[in-house]
Amino acid sequence: MSTAIAAPPQGIDLPSTADAVRVTTESSIDALTFDSIPVQKPGPREVLVAIKAVSLNYRDLLVVSGKYSPNLPKPLIIASDGAGEVIAVGQDATRFKPGDRVAGSFFQSWMDGEYHREIGKSALGGSIDGVLATYRIFEQQGLVHLPSHLSYEEGATLPCAAVTAWNALVPTAHLKSGDTVLLLGTGGVSMFGLQFAKLHGARVILTSSSDEKLERAKALGADDTINYKKTPEWDKEVLRLTEGRGADVVLEVGGAGTLAYSLRSVRHGGQVSLIGVLSGLNEPLNIAPILHGNIRVQGIYVGSVAMFEAMNRAITVNHLKPVIDRVFSFHQTREALRHMESAQHLGKIVIKVS
Amino acid sequence: MSTAIAAPPQGIDLPSTADAVRVTTESSIDALTFDSIPVQKPGPREVLVAIKAVSLNYRDLLVVSGKYSPNLPKPLIIASDGAGEVIAVGQDATRFKPGDRVAGSFFQSWMDGEYHREIGKSALGGSIDGVLATYRIFEQQGLVHLPSHLSYEEGATLPCAAVTAWNALVPTAHLKSGDTVLLLGTGGVSMFGLQFAKLHGARVILTSSSDEKLERAKALGADDTINYKKTPEWDKEVLRLTEGRGADVVLEVGGAGTLAYSLRSVRHGGQVSLIGVLSGLNEPLNIAPILHGNIRVQGIYVGSVAMFEAMNRAITVNHLKPVIDRVFSFHQTREALRHMESAQHLGKIVIKVS
Amino acid sequence: MSTAIAAPPQGIDLPSTADAVRVTTESSIDALTFDSIPVQKPGPREVLVAIKAVSLNYRDLLVVSGKYSPNLPKPLIIASDGAGEVIAVGQDATRFKPGDRVAGSFFQSWMDGEYHREIGKSALGGSIDGVLATYRIFEQQGLVHLPSHLSYEEGATLPCAAVTAWNALVPTAHLKSGDTVLLLGTGGVSMFGLQFAKLHGARVILTSSSDEKLERAKALGADDTINYKKTPEWDKEVLRLTEGRGADVVLEVGGAGTLAYSLRSVRHGGQVSLIGVLSGLNEPLNIAPILHGNIRVQGIYVGSVAMFEAMNRAITVNHLKPVIDRVFSFHQTREALRHMESAQHLGKIVIKVS
Amino acid sequence: MSTAIAAPPQGIDLPSTADAVRVTTESSIDALTFDSIPVQKPGPREVLVAIKAVSLNYRDLLVVSGKYSPNLPKPLIIASDGAGEVIAVGQDATRFKPGDRVAGSFFQSWMDGEYHREIGKSALGGSIDGVLATYRIFEQQGLVHLPSHLSYEEGATLPCAAVTAWNALVPTAHLKSGDTVLLLGTGGVSMFGLQFAKLHGARVILTSSSDEKLERAKALGADDTINYKKTPEWDKEVLRLTEGRGADVVLEVGGAGTLAYSLRSVRHGGQVSLIGVLSGLNEPLNIAPILHGNIRVQGIYVGSVAMFEAMNRAITVNHLKPVIDRVFSFHQTREALRHMESAQHLGKIVIKVS
Repeated sequence: MSTAIAAPPQGIDLPSTADAVRVTTESSIDALTFDSIPVQKPGPREVLVAIKAVSLNYRDLLVVSGKYSPNLPKPLIIASDGAGEVIAVGQDATRFKPGDRVAGSFFQSWMDGEYHREIGKSALGGSIDGVLATYRIFEQQGLVHLPSHLSYEEGATLPCAAVTAWNALVPTAHLKSGDTVLLLGTGGVSMFGLQFAKLHGARVILTSSSDEKLERAKALGADDTINYKKTPEWDKEVLRLTEGRGADVVLEVGGAGTLAYSLRSVRHGGQVSLIGVLSGLNEPLNIAPILHGNIRVQGIYVGSVAMFEAMNRAITVNHLKPVIDRVFSFHQTREALRHMESAQHLGKIVIKVS
Repeated sequence: MSTAIAAPPQGIDLPSTADAVRVTTESSIDALTFDSIPVQKPGPREVLVAIKAVSLNYRDLLVVSGKYSPNLPKPLIIASDGAGEVIAVGQDATRFKPGDRVAGSFFQSWMDGEYHREIGKSALGGSIDGVLATYRIFEQQGLVHLPSHLSYEEGATLPCAAVTAWNALVPTAHLKSGDTVLLLGTGGVSMFGLQFAKLHGARVILTSSSDEKLERAKALGADDTINYKKTPEWDKEVLRLTEGRGADVVLEVGGAGTLAYSLRSVRHGGQVSLIGVLSGLNEPLNIAPILHGNIRVQGIYVGSVAMFEAMNRAITVNHLKPVIDRVFSFHQTREALRHMESAQHLGKIVIKVS
Repeated sequence: MSTAIAAPPQGIDLPSTADAVRVTTESSIDALTFDSIPVQKPGPREVLVAIKAVSLNYRDLLVVSGKYSPNLPKPLIIASDGAGEVIAVGQDATRFKPGDRVAGSFFQSWMDGEYHREIGKSALGGSIDGVLATYRIFEQQGLVHLPSHLSYEEGATLPCAAVTAWNALVPTAHLKSGDTVLLLGTGGVSMFGLQFAKLHGARVILTSSSDEKLERAKALGADDTINYKKTPEWDKEVLRLTEGRGADVVLEVGGAGTLAYSLRSVRHGGQVSLIGVLSGLNEPLNIAPILHGNIRVQGIYVGSVAMFEAMNRAITVNHLKPVIDRVFSFHQTREALRHMESAQHLGKIVIKVS
Repeated sequence: MSTAIAAPPQGIDLPSTADAVRVTTESSIDALTFDSIPVQKPGPREVLVAIKAVSLNYRDLLVVSGKYSPNLPKPLIIASDGAGEVIAVGQDATRFKPGDRVAGSFFQSWMDGEYHREIGKSALGGSIDGVLATYRIFEQQGLVHLPSHLSYEEGATLPCAAVTAWNALVPTAHLKSGDTVLLLGTGGVSMFGLQFAKLHGARVILTSSSDEKLERAKALGADDTINYKKTPEWDKEVLRLTEGRGADVVLEVGGAGTLAYSLRSVRHGGQVSLIGVLSGLNEPLNIAPILHGNIRVQGIYVGSVAMFEAMNRAITVNHLKPVIDRVFSFHQTREALRHMESAQHLGKIVIKVS
């Protein structure tokens, strides 16, 4: 078996090095390093991508600050969400050709079907090197085509937050028109949740502590909004808005601090998609409502390549545009992370790489 | 157990007779009779409804012309789809009160869950008396509340065609945004299919022999249309429009004459919802494509009360309005049936009862 | 509508009173009262049953001791699980005839399909009067036929524990042959879980603090057993026994005290069926494993009449016999409850009523 | 990327040629050729297998006799079902090591999730070279481990017939204990269907034209049998045996000639798994029963690697042994095919390769 690769766009040499942002032994935004790393030729089923844009997730902040996992390989290129242009492909990498616009899948080895333990070892920017680099080689199976109406900045928002929201609403909860979706806050997952819920003709109730953000959510299609600072018992407001029935699906991004409220807000027989841990991991929880309401608490850890592709079809058919909060340059990576830390954003924070 | 019933609106006597349109021993539109029939008081769990509007389905034409089944009870009040106002309720019929706006479920005994053989014995306007009458008593379990933004004429379009389209797309095919739905023609089921598919963010391909109807379908949201007279190999056009993938779901209303095309138009692993028999029942069929494409052919026979209620939530949240072709008066019932026979309509044919 | 009822077995008068065991204002086993209560004639869709046997559940102990809910109606006939003989039926109660052997469904109004809030108001021995009485009237929809090879004592064990185990394994977890089921302890639900798991060709791992009970579980088919007293980190033992994969389904009857272990014992992508609260309701819980393992925590609150009937088909086809711990007489009801309190039993505790 | 491979068992040279049975331009059993073909070294993710045993399917007979498809590549190594020992693995083929006992998946590229069109291009012994050869290289993703209690002859029976029966009953029909499965005849798929149905606690009704085969089926666990020669209206007998309900799932291996009967034998709301075409492809079919019974006709084309692995867990937990009709030697391949042609077998026909 030879190792011939498809030629890159005419007259262009393959890069031998890439610039990459890495977390090393010290865990802090300041300690991030900008390194030059070697770039190999793609193997038979591999694809070399020039990364054009990267989006950040709260998880990246945890990784950078050392709070994500004690077992990360170091040094580690950060970030899971990247979009770019294919520069060269191995001889058996027939799904892509130079010039294709692509994004990487969060889990490089979750193709389709159910999640299992091995898949967890292929998470970009966690278990393995991420995408905040000027070039990166992927197995062809770990890439998807970008919807043609999206820019690289827009495409880079999809791999983690959008696929998570899609998984939480569509393949696991079988969202249908007329269902009520409850969204907590205005982070990346919730904004995609809002858009996907409205794409499916669902009703959306959204909470935030900021009236300004609630207004913007309404402009994006939210049917009802709740300021949880002004209405601390927001579960009762959800029940009131649904005439006592409750929401069909809750995208629970908050974690232990909000879960008890979510369990009282969801309808009996409904689903709480457990996504995030913004408010903590380890709180006392009364589990009786889960039993007595026949409620399903479904853990959601991003999703598969097949989900990503199905989602892209939805985005394409409906010309959906992701909600971008702000775009930073590659060298403003630290500022971008600090902006995320401030929690002032609505939608996705993007880094333009090249 | 007493038989007390909730009082009708003040000062109004309960009716003792109703006018009804019935098919008798002779099976033809001309032989339909307009009869006065006795109306009883509602039993403990029963509800007396003043029917305000009725919509027709192709099945009603088959019933009237004697082509539906040799075993119909006669005389039989025709039509399955009616909407009206609650006049009185039995003491245990707590789900409704006088003044409520309701529609009857096609199957009076399919509440929720799977279909089974017994349910078939409760089909309005077939196994049991239908709704083309000025008054009718229902078990409370066989009624649903009308969406508040719909008139009685609009509400009367829902029980058969809309629930059928909903069942075919949503609970059995789990339609999601980005899926492609193939619709055949512009009858009632296909028009609801078009609306429900667009509510879910799906892409719609629709066929017709009339460019005028295709234009109107486009105005209602169809993404692509095919004139099957001009493009007799429309299955190939569906594959072309979907880049060789095929439609995710086909609403097969045609029957034996179109099924072979539908099987070649659907994607591998996709669903053909088998609904109708407009083009015949008993044609030679090559079944190999079902096997080799892992295709699911799902028979659809209207749906349950739970589906009806879920559909009504979708209609309500999205302020959806049914597509009505034309409204006839009660005494124009024969003309309404002949209009259906002419197959000139797009959307539903309605009879205003009172 | 007349109120004729089918005649009871010839020459037998309908009973006008029944003996019933009730919890009144004071909540304790000692304070239970044995009362004579009036029995009415069955209404049109009602069925009069002579209760022959009743089985107890841990919930009954909570009800009797005032720990179940502050809102119970009082006085309340206790117990949800009864089997008996049909004595008379209303004219429209066509599903049953005098002489039929029947059991009552835990929820009298959950026929089929999804659970919703209203259903909770129809729970026997909680929201409404239970079955520990010599006679009881049921709506016909709230009864099922007993498998013919079961005695009344055996049939009485089914409504709560067996349907719960069935719901937890079959309709919600789609148990299949080759799956691994983890069962906690040897109570009624776990014993039915063991039997149903083996009926489906699954592998069973079962925990208990008693080697003697573990031996008996092995004799009933358990493939592997763990004494959790001797192996406090039983989650690690489950992983070892499954070569690191974890159990496909866990029947979590313990509640807050064991849930953390169950979440570490289940495979990624698997289901923890949350059933019971034996070890407490309100413990701190680290929810991160739910997310990172894509785990589904499915609340299970008994099940529907359709589930009961499907389960009875399984019991019938396989001639399955429930595991009965001990049978008490009607007048030994207090002893039976104290026996449950002692937690010495393996399988179901039954009261022979007549 | 180097192409180092794991060393084969010590002191053994990798083979440079293999013996293979191929169909060439002429299509007949007699025209099959026994050829020596070159064997390459396995690529990075590839595995070299010494084939020990192969089983035949009716499809192989169609391929050999030129009736399967006009587009087969020629010459083509026949047969889809092989089991053997791993001899060498590429450096990235980490799922296997020399000495492992494996079987090939019918579709080399259907890993998990839904079937799609591309998968069809990876069918062994049809779209690509099959397994009736002394050595064959596989992508590691196209292999599964054999259950340890099975011989190579037994393991070779699994890839097509067993996975087909499993797919038809378990992942698509969610077979559960107490369901009734209807099986047609005693070929390989039906015998695995019988075994898998009984593993799940289902009831089995089986048809055949031979009382002797029916007796053997009973000995293997069939609950009821029908001789369709003596009872030509066997659909009525199925309804009688199920008290009018019908079978929950039918494994329809016959095709157009039996489908009408199967549609009348399945319960309303049930599934006909459409698998085979033994009796013809292109017969007139009355499709009305599909509609009016809400029946699902599910095309089944073998299954995925994930299904194969799940099935193997079931086989392992239950120590299930495949039903082998007869074992031929490699050089008796023609006799083996003629034995299949004679339709005298019950269970699988196997060829011992080495």
